[in-house]
Amino acid sequence: MNNLTHTIAAVSTPPGKGGVAIIRISGEGAFDIADKVFSPASEKKLSDFGPRVQIYGYIVDSGERIDDVLLTRFPAPHSYTGEDTVEIACHGGILVSALVLEAVLKAGAMPAAAGEFTRRAFINGRMSLTEAEAISDLLEARSREQIRLSSSTARDALSTKIGDIRTELVSLMSSIYARIDYPDEDLGDFSDKEVLAHLYNIRKKISSLLSTYKTGRAISEGVRTVICGKPNAGKSSLYNLLVGEDAAIVTDIAGTTRDVLERSVPCGKIMLRLTDTAGIREGEKIDEVERIGIERSREMIKKSELLFAIFDLSRPFDEQDRLLCDLIRESKAPKIAILNKSDKPKVFDCDMLPLFDCSITATMQGDGGESLKKIEKAVNELFTDEKILVGEDAVIFSARQNAALSRADEFITAAIESIEAGFSQDAASSDIERALGAVAELDGRAVSEEIVADIFSKFCVGK
Amino acid sequence: MNNLTHTIAAVSTPPGKGGVAIIRISGEGAFDIADKVFSPASEKKLSDFGPRVQIYGYIVDSGERIDDVLLTRFPAPHSYTGEDTVEIACHGGILVSALVLEAVLKAGAMPAAAGEFTRRAFINGRMSLTEAEAISDLLEARSREQIRLSSSTARDALSTKIGDIRTELVSLMSSIYARIDYPDEDLGDFSDKEVLAHLYNIRKKISSLLSTYKTGRAISEGVRTVICGKPNAGKSSLYNLLVGEDAAIVTDIAGTTRDVLERSVPCGKIMLRLTDTAGIREGEKIDEVERIGIERSREMIKKSELLFAIFDLSRPFDEQDRLLCDLIRESKAPKIAILNKSDKPKVFDCDMLPLFDCSITATMQGDGGESLKKIEKAVNELFTDEKILVGEDAVIFSARQNAALSRADEFITAAIESIEAGFSQDAASSDIERALGAVAELDGRAVSEEIVADIFSKFCVGK
Repeated sequence: MNNLTHTIAAVSTPPGKGGVAIIRISGEGAFDIADKVFSPASEKKLSDFGPRVQIYGYIVDSGERIDDVLLTRFPAPHSYTGEDTVEIACHGGILVSALVLEAVLKAGAMPAAAGEFTRRAFINGRMSLTEAEAISDLLEARSREQIRLSSSTARDALSTKIGDIRTELVSLMSSIYARIDYPDEDLGDFSDKEVLAHLYNIRKKISSLLSTYKTGRAISEGVRTVICGKPNAGKSSLYNLLVGEDAAIVTDIAGTTRDVLERSVPCGKIMLRLTDTAGIREGEKIDEVERIGIERSREMIKKSELLFAIFDLSRPFDEQDRLLCDLIRESKAPKIAILNKSDKPKVFDCDMLPLFDCSITATMQGDGGESLKKIEKAVNELFTDEKILVGEDAVIFSARQNAALSRADEFITAAIESIEAGFSQDAASSDIERALGAVAELDGRAVSEEIVADIFSKFCVGK
Repeated sequence: MNNLTHTIAAVSTPPGKGGVAIIRISGEGAFDIADKVFSPASEKKLSDFGPRVQIYGYIVDSGERIDDVLLTRFPAPHSYTGEDTVEIACHGGILVSALVLEAVLKAGAMPAAAGEFTRRAFINGRMSLTEAEAISDLLEARSREQIRLSSSTARDALSTKIGDIRTELVSLMSSIYARIDYPDEDLGDFSDKEVLAHLYNIRKKISSLLSTYKTGRAISEGVRTVICGKPNAGKSSLYNLLVGEDAAIVTDIAGTTRDVLERSVPCGKIMLRLTDTAGIREGEKIDEVERIGIERSREMIKKSELLFAIFDLSRPFDEQDRLLCDLIRESKAPKIAILNKSDKPKVFDCDMLPLFDCSITATMQGDGGESLKKIEKAVNELFTDEKILVGEDAVIFSARQNAALSRADEFITAAIESIEAGFSQDAASSDIERALGAVAELDGRAVSEEIVADIFSKFCVGK
């Protein structure tokens, strides 16, 4: 990362061949650099044009025209970063944009680090940390619901909600401190009952926001999902059914363990991070009873956050099914039983279904569309809160937000217990102050440099 | 391709994750579509803002905010396409930009075909065909010289030069026709001598422009180059020396034949399309005398436009070297002898060097920088015209341009011969008219739909 006094520059569009590429420059020297590298096609000077106007002209490096471009100046503070910013739209060739950037760097800019523009926007108060996180999510979004979750309306709603909690905490703190610091002033009474009423109210708001994490996380990060079942029960059919519908926006992401590849697949409003069960499917000729004991399957099931267990209605419940149920029982994840092959005569009968959160009768025959709808409904009931209007309501969606808010919750609870136990408001105030610190960390008003660095490291260069 | 009355739209930035993506809309309906999908963040209406101003606001689809964006309107004719154009800068996620485009398409735009924006710019007279070709080159450019060749100054120079030739042809034609069509008018005399003087002058200009093709082609398309030599002469060292220096902008392109991969490598001002001689290098343990006879090597040498033959100064000129020279003799391509290992005691002696256009004493020891400079100099002397100031002078650079201009040259020569042989000006005029047709084809005033389609098919969607 550069010092804030540096003027930074980067290509902000994705690398590759396209019609247009954007080079972004931000910092005190941005306009001077624009003057050095840009010459308007008309007789006018750059300063003759208004702010935010796209000006046609040429990028010139050492007297040589590199490209004809459109240049726009965004004077501080009305820019993405809150600093003087210049955006140059040049032809979209890889080398052309590299040469335009080179000219800009020669004229005095420093190469921007990954996420540095957004980091500056945060530092300059143009956005909170939760908003920056939402934008990071937006760039990575693979489902419409994820875009809703990261939309400007949702970003505003979350910032407002956090600001609201923060304001109440500050107001409570100052009421307590004023009476402690100026006991001689006639500030009126501030009973423990009143303090508790405020604390209950604040805790209720925090809890309400915390409860949105399950939904936010399922939409944003997705739910680690494992499909299991005995040979020929229909595992690969279910896998293909889940993957196939939205194959166009399916992406592969490297799993946390070396051997397991995950596939993120939209399922209704949420994302399933489907563990590729290809290995198990390939091994179907091997005795599944043996295979199922393999530590790897056990590990996968242990780490899963959602389990699909497939049973074949056309065959009796057998020892393999029972072994699977025993294995699944160890997991705390929600479990869905898929009672497959409902189009065939039913032979299956078992007493293990209470083990599951729900069971769905399904057939993968035809397009499987009806079954998919039932599965999507069941999954979304398990992982999303219907009362939440994603895209409009405040929803937290990152582990960091959840951790900070949970800490705030704990400190408020400690303060409540302290006063309920008869300790002084002064004694409780240190917990309230810690809760305020945790909330300030949540929206980034007080947050360690390491956390900031970690968040912005997820961005690409140019954002 | 859409009908010109359609309003078209596409994502104009490269696909992938970046900070910013641009969605471009062009056509009569562009502003109406912008009104439908965009709502400014301020109280103002879209029409309250001036042209070319970047306006902050939201893309709304079915009442739902998709993204916060910057929107700019470029009223006709002052836009890239010459039509009413809208550009939307949204967040750079793949799905976000896809959803913004989707909203725009729902509002009435048609998806743009590859190159359709530039094609409309051409049809609307915003650029000539040679300019469109230069922009296509610019997007693909892999060397600074190629960018110079496609720069706006160079594009203007070529258009001006072609326009100049065209004007002279039109003027000559009208002078001849006026006297033929209105023999009774007193238009003064127009002697064959005068007509010939005009034709000589035009032919000189055409020849001068034609002579730039060798340089333009070497910079733009590159020169098919083969490195050959007996085992351990230094083929792979030379290959690495040529590739290594600019490894960062080296790209692999699929060759015209199935088995041969080419690598485009800048060499001074031009590009070498180095045929990967890995096969030959791998086979060094096989008797090279045998290998050299292989049809594939013969084919490669036959198709090459530049040959590097490497000889080892520290070993005697032997039968293998002689076989290589015999093989090379068949090729019409320029040939450069690289007399390698000049750092070792010289043993080599041969009488075959007159076969080569030049010979360079070299060593690949150390960084080989000195040898590389000598090679670059020799290659550029062979393939570029020093009198041409690339980036400022008019230079033709595509086979299409060369073919059209060559046809014009042939027709002018035919007209000259016709008049010199004593035929009437009337008889010569049909050749002059054909020459005019060829020149008009060159800058696109008269060109078949197939050629236009072919040129624009090389563009990406969004340009």
